[in-house]
Amino acid sequence: MTLDPVLARIDADLPHATERLFELLRIPSISTDPAYKDACQKAADWLVADLQSIGFDASKRETPGHPMVVAHSGGEGPHVLFYGHYDVQPVDPLDLWDNDPFDPQIEDTPKGKVIRGRGTADDKGQLMTFVEACRAWKAVHGTLPANISLFFEGEEESGSPSLIPFMKENREEITADIALISDTSLYDDNTPSILTQLRGLLGEELTITGPDRDLHSGSYGGIAINPARVLTRIIASLHDDDGRITVPHFYDGVPELSNELAASWDDLKFDHNAFLGEVGLSKPAGETGRRPLEMIWSRPTCEVNGIWSGYTGDGFKTVLPSKASAKISFRLVGTQDPLKIRKNFRAMVEGMLPEDCTVEWKDHGAGPASHMTTTHPAFAQARAALSDEWPNTAAYIGAGGSIPIAGYFKEILDMDTMLIGFGKDDDGLHSPNEKFDLSSFHKGMRSWARILDAMTK
Amino acid sequence: MTLDPVLARIDADLPHATERLFELLRIPSISTDPAYKDACQKAADWLVADLQSIGFDASKRETPGHPMVVAHSGGEGPHVLFYGHYDVQPVDPLDLWDNDPFDPQIEDTPKGKVIRGRGTADDKGQLMTFVEACRAWKAVHGTLPANISLFFEGEEESGSPSLIPFMKENREEITADIALISDTSLYDDNTPSILTQLRGLLGEELTITGPDRDLHSGSYGGIAINPARVLTRIIASLHDDDGRITVPHFYDGVPELSNELAASWDDLKFDHNAFLGEVGLSKPAGETGRRPLEMIWSRPTCEVNGIWSGYTGDGFKTVLPSKASAKISFRLVGTQDPLKIRKNFRAMVEGMLPEDCTVEWKDHGAGPASHMTTTHPAFAQARAALSDEWPNTAAYIGAGGSIPIAGYFKEILDMDTMLIGFGKDDDGLHSPNEKFDLSSFHKGMRSWARILDAMTK
Repeated sequence: MTLDPVLARIDADLPHATERLFELLRIPSISTDPAYKDACQKAADWLVADLQSIGFDASKRETPGHPMVVAHSGGEGPHVLFYGHYDVQPVDPLDLWDNDPFDPQIEDTPKGKVIRGRGTADDKGQLMTFVEACRAWKAVHGTLPANISLFFEGEEESGSPSLIPFMKENREEITADIALISDTSLYDDNTPSILTQLRGLLGEELTITGPDRDLHSGSYGGIAINPARVLTRIIASLHDDDGRITVPHFYDGVPELSNELAASWDDLKFDHNAFLGEVGLSKPAGETGRRPLEMIWSRPTCEVNGIWSGYTGDGFKTVLPSKASAKISFRLVGTQDPLKIRKNFRAMVEGMLPEDCTVEWKDHGAGPASHMTTTHPAFAQARAALSDEWPNTAAYIGAGGSIPIAGYFKEILDMDTMLIGFGKDDDGLHSPNEKFDLSSFHKGMRSWARILDAMTK
Repeated sequence: MTLDPVLARIDADLPHATERLFELLRIPSISTDPAYKDACQKAADWLVADLQSIGFDASKRETPGHPMVVAHSGGEGPHVLFYGHYDVQPVDPLDLWDNDPFDPQIEDTPKGKVIRGRGTADDKGQLMTFVEACRAWKAVHGTLPANISLFFEGEEESGSPSLIPFMKENREEITADIALISDTSLYDDNTPSILTQLRGLLGEELTITGPDRDLHSGSYGGIAINPARVLTRIIASLHDDDGRITVPHFYDGVPELSNELAASWDDLKFDHNAFLGEVGLSKPAGETGRRPLEMIWSRPTCEVNGIWSGYTGDGFKTVLPSKASAKISFRLVGTQDPLKIRKNFRAMVEGMLPEDCTVEWKDHGAGPASHMTTTHPAFAQARAALSDEWPNTAAYIGAGGSIPIAGYFKEILDMDTMLIGFGKDDDGLHSPNEKFDLSSFHKGMRSWARILDAMTK
C-alpha cells in the first residue's frame, strides 16, 4: 500500500474533515460540570457513529461517570492503540470569548487560518487528526495499514475517575503493541516533537470554616477568626523566598536534569522571552537558579487554580465570611509520589489551622509523572516520518502538562506510549478563545498517515 | 400631651405596624447591586407615601445613585432629625436562607417571636420603630410633640456615595437641634444602650493581573507568575504574629482606652464566651493582650470581606489565572485618617508586587470613627426615658460597626447624634436568616415615644 495517494486524499478531503470536526466541536462536552452530562453522552455517540462509518467495530461503554468509546479495526500488522479525550474544559469567563465557544469558526489571523472554539486543540481537533488519517487510508486502499484500536475517554479534564477501573476490567482489549496519543504541542511552528517526559498532577480542594455563619465585620471584626485570612496565610506559606515548595518531603524523588538532557534542551534554544512575552509576561517566575525549560518540563510546581471566600459580586459587603476555599494543584516530576504528597500537604495545612477553624478536603485526582523509554522501534520510525512531513527534524522533548494515562498504560498494561501532538503554545488551552491552527489539523492528519506507513513498512 | 395613651395606642396597633413593616421588607432594596435599582426607588416611594399618610411633608429626592427621602412635620418644640436607611445587604448565599429573604414571616423561637427577613434589623425594622412612634402620637394627640424631620438614605450598605454632596447641598433643611439614629443594638436583652463611640470604615478592592489571559497550568506552571499566589502573599503580610496590622503608620491616632472607660466597660461584664459561642467560636482572635470588648469597640481591624481568582465552580480546572481580586476593609478608631491609611495601604501593596504584576484599585468608601459628646441634654433625657421602658438602666457603650453619618452630622452640620438601637447580637446582620425580635420592634416604638416625651417636657 502506498502513502502518496493517502496524503493526496487527505489534502482533497480537508473541507469535509473540517466540517466533521465542527460537528464534534458543537457538542459542549464539559466533563467537570454535571450540567453537561448529556452532552458528554452525545459526543461519545457521535464518535461511535463516525468510527462505524469508517468500518471500525465501535461501541460506547458506560462507566459510573462519562462513557468510554472503544473501537477496533482488526486486521494485519502491528497492533496500535490510539487514545484521545472527547471532553473539554469549562468555558468561563464566558464574556472573554469573542464568539460562542461551541460555534466553531475558521478565522483568518496574521499567522494563518485557525479553527476557533472550545476543544479545538484540547483534544477534539487532535484526536480527529488520527481518525481522519484512518479514514483516508481506508478510502484509498479499502483497508488500514495496521491493526488499529481507538480508545476515547470523556473525563480527562475532570481527573479521569473511571479510567483505571475501566482499563483494569478491559485489560486484554485495550492492550496493544504501542499506544499513540495526540494531546500535546509541536516544539515550534517548524519542529514536530515526541514527548519523552510529562509532569504528573495532584489536585486538591480545601474549605476552611471559622464561624458557623457569615458575620457582620463591624459587630465581629477583630474578635472573630476570619477563614479567608487563615487560608491566605496557609497558601502564602507554600513557597519559600526562592520559590521552592515547603510541603515536607515534597522534593523526594525529584531528579536533577542529566547532563545529556540538559545539553539536548539547551540545543533547542528555548526563547523564554518570546514564550512569556506572548502572554504579557517577561520574567521566569519559578525556582531561583533553574533554567526556564526546567521550570516547565522537569521541576514540580504548586499552583492556586482557584480561590474564593466572602462577597465577590459588584459593590461591597462588609461580611466576615464563614468559609474560605481554594483549588490547589501540584505538578509532579520524577518519582514523586502523589499520594504521599497529598498526605503531607494535608497534614501541613491541618497543622497550621488556628483554634476554631476546621478544614474539609476534596480529592481532584492524583497521577505520577511519566518518563518514556525511547527504545521501542516505533520511536525512531515516527521520528523519521515526522521529519519527512515538517521542515525540521522531530525533537524529543519534555512537557509541563499532565497526561497521566501514559503512566497508567505503562503501569497497568505494560504498554509504551508515544505522545505526538500538533498544538501550538498560543492555542489558549483551558482559556477563552481556544484555537487549533488549520495547518496543525491538516499536517497532523498527514503526519499520522506517514507514521502509520513508517510503522508498518 | 400625655404619654400613656400613646403607649396604649402603640400596643393596640402592633399587628398593623407589623403589616406595614412587612410591606417595606418585601421590597428587595439591595443598594450595592445595580439589578435592584428599581427596588430602591420603590422602597423610597413607599416611605414617602407612608410618611405623607401620617401628615409629614415628605418627598423623594433623586441623587446620582439611589434617592433620599426627606420629610418634615413642622410645628412647635425642639427640632429633631431622625436618620435611617431603607437599603439592605445582598442575600447571597441564598441557599443558606430557610425562607425567601424578601417574604418576611413571624416565627416562634425558643427566645420569643422574631420577624425573619433581609432588612428586618438592618435597618427597616428599626427605622419603622420611630415612624410608628410618630404615627401613634399623631393618632392620639392630632399633632407631634416636637418639630420632627426624617432623613432616609438608600446607599448606607454601599458606601453612601451621594450622602455628603446631598448634606452639603441641603445643609439648612437637614440641620436640627439633634440627630437620632436607630441602627444599633441593645447592650443585652434587658439593657438598652446609647452609643458613644463607633468605628470608621475604609473599603478597598484590588485586582492583581499577571499574565494577560488565563493560562494552562501544565504549559505555564512554574515559569509564569500566578497572581493568586501574589495576592495571598500580600494579604498574609497584612497582620503580624500578634495580630497587629502592618500597614505603615496604621496606628497613628489609635488611642489607648482611658481608665474610666476601661472600668465602665469592665462593669458590663461582657461574656465573650457566650458572644463567640453563639457563632461557633471560642477564642478571641484579635490583637494579643487586648480585652475582648476592645477588639470590637476600640481597636482597628483589617478584614478580607471577599477574595476570588481562577476557577471556583464544581470540579477542577487546571487554570493559572490571569487575575486575582480581593475586597478588604479596615475598621478605624480614634482619629485614624482613612485617606492616609488608603494611601499607605496602596503604597505597601504596590511595593510588594513582583515584576510582571499590576494592580487596579476600586474605592468602596472611607469614613472616620465617631465619638459622641454626651453633654447635650438629650443624652440624659433619653437615658432616663429608656430606663423607664426597660428592666435595666441604659448603658453608654461603644460599637464595632461603622455608621459614618454620625461623624458627618458633626463635621458638616455641627449636629450631635444619639444612636439608640433595639437589635440583638444574634440578629444575623448581613447574614442569611436575618431577624429582628418582635419585642425589639414593639419596645423600640414605645422607647421612641418615651424619648420624644422626655425631650419635650
